[in-house]
Amino acid sequence: MSMAFNWRLRCQTLRFMSKELSSYKHAKISMSKTLRNTTPEAYCTLREVLVKQDRAQAFGYNVQLNEKETAANEVIMKQKLRELEKGFLDPAKFAPGHHIFEVLKEVEKSKLFAMLKTMPKGGILHAHDTALCSTEFLIRLTYRPDLWICTTDDGCKAIAFRFSKEQPTMKALSDCNWEPMCEFRQRRGEENVTKYLYRRFSMYPYASFASNNEAWNHFMGIFMLLDGLLMHAPVWADYYYNALQELKADGVQYLELRSLLPDLYCIDGQQLKINDTLAIYKTQTDAFLQQNPDFIGAKLIYAPLRGVEPQVVEEYVQKCTALKQEFGDFLVGFDLVGQEELGRPLIDFIEPLLKMPEDINFYFHAGETNWFGTSIDENLIDAILLGTKRIGHGFALVKHPFAMELCKSLNIAVEVCPVSNQVLQLGRDYRNHPAATLIAQSVPIVISSDDPSFWRASPLTHDFYFAFLGIAPARANLKFLKLLALNSISYSGLSPEEKSVAMQKWQAQWDKWMIISTAVVYIVLLFISAIV
Amino acid sequence: MSMAFNWRLRCQTLRFMSKELSSYKHAKISMSKTLRNTTPEAYCTLREVLVKQDRAQAFGYNVQLNEKETAANEVIMKQKLRELEKGFLDPAKFAPGHHIFEVLKEVEKSKLFAMLKTMPKGGILHAHDTALCSTEFLIRLTYRPDLWICTTDDGCKAIAFRFSKEQPTMKALSDCNWEPMCEFRQRRGEENVTKYLYRRFSMYPYASFASNNEAWNHFMGIFMLLDGLLMHAPVWADYYYNALQELKADGVQYLELRSLLPDLYCIDGQQLKINDTLAIYKTQTDAFLQQNPDFIGAKLIYAPLRGVEPQVVEEYVQKCTALKQEFGDFLVGFDLVGQEELGRPLIDFIEPLLKMPEDINFYFHAGETNWFGTSIDENLIDAILLGTKRIGHGFALVKHPFAMELCKSLNIAVEVCPVSNQVLQLGRDYRNHPAATLIAQSVPIVISSDDPSFWRASPLTHDFYFAFLGIAPARANLKFLKLLALNSISYSGLSPEEKSVAMQKWQAQWDKWMIISTAVVYIVLLFISAIV
Repeated sequence: MSMAFNWRLRCQTLRFMSKELSSYKHAKISMSKTLRNTTPEAYCTLREVLVKQDRAQAFGYNVQLNEKETAANEVIMKQKLRELEKGFLDPAKFAPGHHIFEVLKEVEKSKLFAMLKTMPKGGILHAHDTALCSTEFLIRLTYRPDLWICTTDDGCKAIAFRFSKEQPTMKALSDCNWEPMCEFRQRRGEENVTKYLYRRFSMYPYASFASNNEAWNHFMGIFMLLDGLLMHAPVWADYYYNALQELKADGVQYLELRSLLPDLYCIDGQQLKINDTLAIYKTQTDAFLQQNPDFIGAKLIYAPLRGVEPQVVEEYVQKCTALKQEFGDFLVGFDLVGQEELGRPLIDFIEPLLKMPEDINFYFHAGETNWFGTSIDENLIDAILLGTKRIGHGFALVKHPFAMELCKSLNIAVEVCPVSNQVLQLGRDYRNHPAATLIAQSVPIVISSDDPSFWRASPLTHDFYFAFLGIAPARANLKFLKLLALNSISYSGLSPEEKSVAMQKWQAQWDKWMIISTAVVYIVLLFISAIV
Repeated sequence: MSMAFNWRLRCQTLRFMSKELSSYKHAKISMSKTLRNTTPEAYCTLREVLVKQDRAQAFGYNVQLNEKETAANEVIMKQKLRELEKGFLDPAKFAPGHHIFEVLKEVEKSKLFAMLKTMPKGGILHAHDTALCSTEFLIRLTYRPDLWICTTDDGCKAIAFRFSKEQPTMKALSDCNWEPMCEFRQRRGEENVTKYLYRRFSMYPYASFASNNEAWNHFMGIFMLLDGLLMHAPVWADYYYNALQELKADGVQYLELRSLLPDLYCIDGQQLKINDTLAIYKTQTDAFLQQNPDFIGAKLIYAPLRGVEPQVVEEYVQKCTALKQEFGDFLVGFDLVGQEELGRPLIDFIEPLLKMPEDINFYFHAGETNWFGTSIDENLIDAILLGTKRIGHGFALVKHPFAMELCKSLNIAVEVCPVSNQVLQLGRDYRNHPAATLIAQSVPIVISSDDPSFWRASPLTHDFYFAFLGIAPARANLKFLKLLALNSISYSGLSPEEKSVAMQKWQAQWDKWMIISTAVVYIVLLFISAIV
């Protein structure tokens, strides 16, 4: 470890005795050939300039830390470097080198994770409607009265859920048999059912599928299974409210939710309308805010499925326009969701998309792929041209330097979702995540969690952990973390006035955290260091 | 597939009827906000500009193809797109998504591979002395007279080899028992021994180690096992000559070999000196050139181990200086080898390295790591500051935009070794190899194979195959391949006069290949298409 991080010390052993400009100049002039006529001292001077230049371009470099933040930074970096050192000595023990399914619990025990959990991380700007809550909460939902389950394989495989007073008449995707959930639970045994659902409601244990397509198949299957459980109007409301609670407990103060805005159903089978779904979100957000005045709030991005014909997108645009008139600022934008590689590229939908009213922002998924030079990664170009405010994933962005440059100059933030990219098999080792290059070049980014429910992760902390420890440079510190939090407000769909309030609410939490992390945590750490 | 590659077609369906500048201008002005006031036609015009701008920065974009090359390009691209399409439809079937050990034979059956094999690829600029030849050749060497083997575990595990008239007295790394190779073979059975050695001389079947450190351990173990077999002077000569033959058969015309330049031994145990080793290389190169006048030649880079004290590097520099005086142009440069993460960083050796005479180039390994922000990836900065002519691997370069910029402006080529990076566990899926970003930004690169013997790969074709199909954009074509070949000469250690001869020799082969690929191959392909 000492080998890796103390170049500074080493350089100092050779360090210039005086910083005469002359030697530096001399070094600079001959640089394009070699520096072999120079002295080690002059070499070190020039090296320092270059290293600084290299680092100065990185995300967070220019963030200022006050005295308290500087103290907190020391506490955090001590933990971070400890985990890095462990990994450096034995890379097999470095959590970000592994699949989250293999290290979830270990990560949760980490002190760095504990610090990040309490850190006020700002908002989640990329997350999907029915993939937010903990599996435990989902299982609790299955105890609600009037729930039916539809199974195949002699009652062994759950295909669908439905709340109903009578046996549901609706058909599920496969041919299956409906029975009351309580009977199913009795018949199979409560413990077995819980175990079974615990697995079915997530991507576990599949850390490795034959391809990302298969991962996506499984992933979409969970959404479909959950539909009947969550699309019951009162459950939809409770699910969302609980999500906000879980967010808050994870140090998150704001949510910009992408939702399909499906038509919900009532216990008598009656179908509600799309504006009812949005109304539920609005009501629950207001209720939550009333109970939690330190919370910033939530906004909606209407994000229906992309695997459709252009005329369907025309309908989406009409719906979105109508919803905007009814819900105003609560609905901030539009996106299209589903596996980008199998759906249609944005260029197919240009005509309807250009009709979207100017007051509805685009927040397009783009470049969530490792194919290079296809219509999929060229979605990045269309997203930018269509004036997207942020880019969802942008995994392929580093392969498009011009698009990356445009993101910087047009101030488009990339919503980086590290864990999602791993579970959906775009990459494995967090150290190779392309966001490292975005960080190195200071492309604006936010860290998001996409569908934390399906990987049993916390709403945001796991993603912060892997980004901070695995993707960012070893030296990335509180400046980096602070900028991530600030960005999640600056690049949100909040209005300028709302942003100003949001910043105050975040700052209040941040200031509290500073006191905690420099006081309590430091004492705890000292205590731990003493006994280890 | 059509979905992925025909955006052009789609865009044409919306395509502008007239290319009035007015609509384009209008589009451009409002771009920083959104283009929603514009027409789909104007949008498509602007999109074309952006896509072109994005692509125009890529490696090989400006290469010109003549008529014959254009025809050959069509043949190649037809095959490439066929393999891409297969992968796109089922990513589990896409060879560059897998570990080479799982797809080696399948790749060798590919028509694209066959084309790349015959393609005159120029030179190999990054390869190591005892990791060049096929395993079959190594096994043939074990039939030479007077070879002894040292084994442990009741003769089950080979530890060392040695040519000797008498039982060797030298100690191997572990305590082991010497016996004549012929007796060992008789005792264990020829087939078993062949099978055993076939495995021991390579990294197979280990497609997955617990970490890259473990992969390196195994890797270094093969080098050590081979020492006694190859460091016998006549064998050393034959091994190298055979390597040149295998290179030639693989469409390679030039080699810039990194060698430890070990002291070789004679059958009577006498140790030769470092200049004898170099003399063998020189003599064999001359002999090979005489037999193969269309071959360009070979040069040496003295590349001893990096895991040493600074005073040892001082000795390296002295040795290298003396060798340069004796061998002139044949010895072009200096490097340090061994796992960069465990060896010392270049900054430790600045004092001795600055003493290297100006006529000896540096070709440093740097950034062969996925750690970010450590002394390891900062080797990139030192390599550049020390005036390196090329960078070995540079896997971490994309995390250092300033260093990447310097590579472009100072014309430093990155020696990209795709298969090596995979086997030594820096990454898995070729589509995520960071060289994609280098290609996108037109950082000068060459493709090399590092240690093809240990992965049973062809001297260069497998690396070309994975780079062309897996790393480069889908549209990368013969322009890309041609520039790789040209770069391997431009960025070599050949003198300007030698380069001019080299270019002629390469051009002659290239012209021949054009005829073959546009005639024979095309007919074969037509025939195959007809019967499929």
